[in-house]
Amino acid sequence: MGVKVVHYEAVPADPVPDLEGVTIRWLIAKADGAPHFAMRLFELQPGSGSPDHRHTWEHEVFVLEGEGVVRTEDGNQPLSPGVAVFVPGEVQHQFLNTGTGPLRFLCLIPHVD
Amino acid sequence: MGVKVVHYEAVPADPVPDLEGVTIRWLIAKADGAPHFAMRLFELQPGSGSPDHRHTWEHEVFVLEGEGVVRTEDGNQPLSPGVAVFVPGEVQHQFLNTGTGPLRFLCLIPHVD
Repeated sequence: MGVKVVHYEAVPADPVPDLEGVTIRWLIAKADGAPHFAMRLFELQPGSGSPDHRHTWEHEVFVLEGEGVVRTEDGNQPLSPGVAVFVPGEVQHQFLNTGTGPLRFLCLIPHVD
Repeated sequence: MGVKVVHYEAVPADPVPDLEGVTIRWLIAKADGAPHFAMRLFELQPGSGSPDHRHTWEHEVFVLEGEGVVRTEDGNQPLSPGVAVFVPGEVQHQFLNTGTGPLRFLCLIPHVD
């Protein structure tokens, strides 16, 4: 597999099971030949959030659009376009859209399977 | 080290040696405790570009602002906000700002040292 160039809107927005108002687009994945980590674009509708959970792998996040918070053991920290977030593995975390429009962010993870 | 939340403008824009009109911001790096890969934000002034080069590691890129091209063995492919680019390891590549304003993109790489 070679170079991939794609606008995110051309990638299907898949619903996330059991998570209303949240979609995921896999922009760069193992299936593209990415050897180490994957780039996903999440879109959360107003009032929606990711699960309040923890796992072994880290997140590297970059906010593209919208307003929200990331809730961790450090409390709620505001999210706006241009904000990067590093969530280490095993840290409890939740992303919430507290704004009036969609919250869009990239979330990159190492391959976990 | 714990959770990191930072706006990219709060991260120093370092000049890239021998590359005029290009800066790099290390948003999430090994020094932050990131175990696998790093998030950098590049800014290229109009007419500037990254080196035409190749290396063993891959790039995962997301364009935030501006207009440009990525030049590879596949030719020149246009870049605009919202475009994701995967450049596998060992593929010759160059990013060029062909627009009239700054070209800003994220470029993530596995830790290489």
